[in-house]
Amino acid sequence: MVISKNMEKLVAGSSTIRKLFEEGLQMAQQVGAENVYDFSLGNPASPVPTEVRDAINDILENTEGNVVHGYMKNAGYDNVRQAVADSLNKKNGTSYTKENIIMTCGAAGGMNCVFRSILDTDDEVIAFAPFFGEYRNYANNYGGKLVVVPADTDTFQLNLKELPRLINKKTKCIIVNNPNNPSGVIYTAETIKKLNDILVNAEKKIGHPIYVLADEPYRELVYGGQDVPYIPNIIKNSIFLYSFSKTLSLPGERIGYMAVSSDVDYYDELINAFIVANRCLGFVNAPSLFQLVVSKCLDVPANIAFYDANRTLLYKELTEMGFDIVKPDGAFYMLIKSPTQDEEEFVAMGKKYHIILVPAKSFGCPGYVRLAYCVSNDMIKRSIPAFKKLAAEYFG
Amino acid sequence: MVISKNMEKLVAGSSTIRKLFEEGLQMAQQVGAENVYDFSLGNPASPVPTEVRDAINDILENTEGNVVHGYMKNAGYDNVRQAVADSLNKKNGTSYTKENIIMTCGAAGGMNCVFRSILDTDDEVIAFAPFFGEYRNYANNYGGKLVVVPADTDTFQLNLKELPRLINKKTKCIIVNNPNNPSGVIYTAETIKKLNDILVNAEKKIGHPIYVLADEPYRELVYGGQDVPYIPNIIKNSIFLYSFSKTLSLPGERIGYMAVSSDVDYYDELINAFIVANRCLGFVNAPSLFQLVVSKCLDVPANIAFYDANRTLLYKELTEMGFDIVKPDGAFYMLIKSPTQDEEEFVAMGKKYHIILVPAKSFGCPGYVRLAYCVSNDMIKRSIPAFKKLAAEYFG
Repeated sequence: MVISKNMEKLVAGSSTIRKLFEEGLQMAQQVGAENVYDFSLGNPASPVPTEVRDAINDILENTEGNVVHGYMKNAGYDNVRQAVADSLNKKNGTSYTKENIIMTCGAAGGMNCVFRSILDTDDEVIAFAPFFGEYRNYANNYGGKLVVVPADTDTFQLNLKELPRLINKKTKCIIVNNPNNPSGVIYTAETIKKLNDILVNAEKKIGHPIYVLADEPYRELVYGGQDVPYIPNIIKNSIFLYSFSKTLSLPGERIGYMAVSSDVDYYDELINAFIVANRCLGFVNAPSLFQLVVSKCLDVPANIAFYDANRTLLYKELTEMGFDIVKPDGAFYMLIKSPTQDEEEFVAMGKKYHIILVPAKSFGCPGYVRLAYCVSNDMIKRSIPAFKKLAAEYFG
Repeated sequence: MVISKNMEKLVAGSSTIRKLFEEGLQMAQQVGAENVYDFSLGNPASPVPTEVRDAINDILENTEGNVVHGYMKNAGYDNVRQAVADSLNKKNGTSYTKENIIMTCGAAGGMNCVFRSILDTDDEVIAFAPFFGEYRNYANNYGGKLVVVPADTDTFQLNLKELPRLINKKTKCIIVNNPNNPSGVIYTAETIKKLNDILVNAEKKIGHPIYVLADEPYRELVYGGQDVPYIPNIIKNSIFLYSFSKTLSLPGERIGYMAVSSDVDYYDELINAFIVANRCLGFVNAPSLFQLVVSKCLDVPANIAFYDANRTLLYKELTEMGFDIVKPDGAFYMLIKSPTQDEEEFVAMGKKYHIILVPAKSFGCPGYVRLAYCVSNDMIKRSIPAFKKLAAEYFG
């Protein structure tokens, strides 16, 4: 075979979500887009804020094209990195400078840079179920291994009881995705403090740092004003990963950043390695125009009302129909408990009514399905009769 | 240490070019930008074509923001991929459809996708010196090894005499960069045909395909109308990698594509793996707005006159001063033979006169330095007196 062994596995178990998304596109061609209720993908339907368009126009008017579209340092434009640092400092009381910020190709690009930099073959990355399935592939790119802490299906908070036994000398980092995709649950400051206690102890035992990757593209998408703790303020060895994809409805533009406090262990080595990784993985730098754009949109709020309308309506309707749902406080996903033991059957049944859901097996949480409600409010309304038919299959 | 072993080496031998570029920025702060002659980086100074700006405006006016900036298939927008296929077919008589095209984060992103897909640990990639130093890092990302065919310093064509002995069962692919960075030499159709003969034989012997990665970001930058053969028309198992960075002066935007003919061995497996790699390496997809932009600029010609003026002036002046130069027919680089055995000394001497050149050791071609003349014509003119002083150190 010409495909590498490592890649063969990856292709075989390739993204369920993306397959379902492409299936949804086909279904739409057959029965009409208005009759397909595609909840598969985290593709934000909230309109792109007008500030983005204004920023593009402003930049194209006032900055020379070869600067806007040219190479800059691999870490990003100095002024963009400083603007990001200032914004984080204002919001979280941190003391970053531009030297602590690397502009990345989304949070996914940032995480790949971290894994490329710190993982040797068979090193371990810990994730808490439920988790974004791509984490496994990102670790796997560099010979790393994802170790999964099983979900606490009572609270969907971090399952800290199960964590210590999974830490060993091979453990290099732990991913904390807050608010969580796919559950929509927010991990509280109390939970993060407990996590810190465990890690401080564990680091002493194993003799090297365990970095916490705070993967937080959804941190601005919070309902009811709940607090999302800023993890680097609680856990010293944190690397903060952010993407503008969700807040600004720009997922296709691949723009985000990482923030690494000068206080983390081996700061100099790490930041240097991350920048080199950004270059050598072929990102070279985060897309240039959109670096400049987001630096002008750092105070643009997420369109919370848009998603909250979807969340409120769906949660009310679906629970009334008899579905058992983990109530989401953030992000734009909800987990529905499958009415059948094998959630793939439930997903298949959904397709009968042109409802596209994702089996949460791929998130390390079998028995549940994920619903991405980052769709138009109109689609949510139109989908209710279809959900009623689906509910009737089980509770009717 | 917290940095992976593989990464430690990479950081230690990190990009000479990038270091020199950042050194140039510092030098400019000290002595004024107008007194620094920075020839280190392939950052095109030719103005961004007005068609790019027009395309951006047109797209923002006429396409919904969530489509412009949203997720699409990981391989790219269908209509963009089809436009690229049509353009290649028109230019090269190929018969691609959108299924053969994957939009990538530059050619660097595309090459990383290929390596991620086909390299197992210790698999080998062959490059012909002189070669772009990042190739080694790209292979290394996935445990692969770069094997270098030494330069033929008489002709700077592919050194095919030395190739066969370097092919073995571990050989997965060969990179051909045409026109070449850093020499500016164009490999002729005759050379490529001879390469094909060698590979067809070698494939029979080793029992698996050896893919040729035609890395061609400079293919439109050709002086004097010389022909650049379209490698996939000569070598069946070719993967064509392209970037719009150089032709459209958009290196910061990270936009390019790969074209994989349906005729290559194991086509289905390959194209599928490349798309998965594009997703899992964290690119997810090529930046969305610029996919749409380049699809409207496929017929925009490179600004050949801009670079040719630089090439002609520099070549004439520098050879008159006594420098020995490989005459470039394409791209925007030239190789100068170092007047001292160790070209690092020559580079250091250049810095004395604020001339920044790159030692070609990092291109596998010691004894030479690379000069990137993709700078303003004005800077070229201003640099001549400095070069005269530099020449006087050796020939004066």
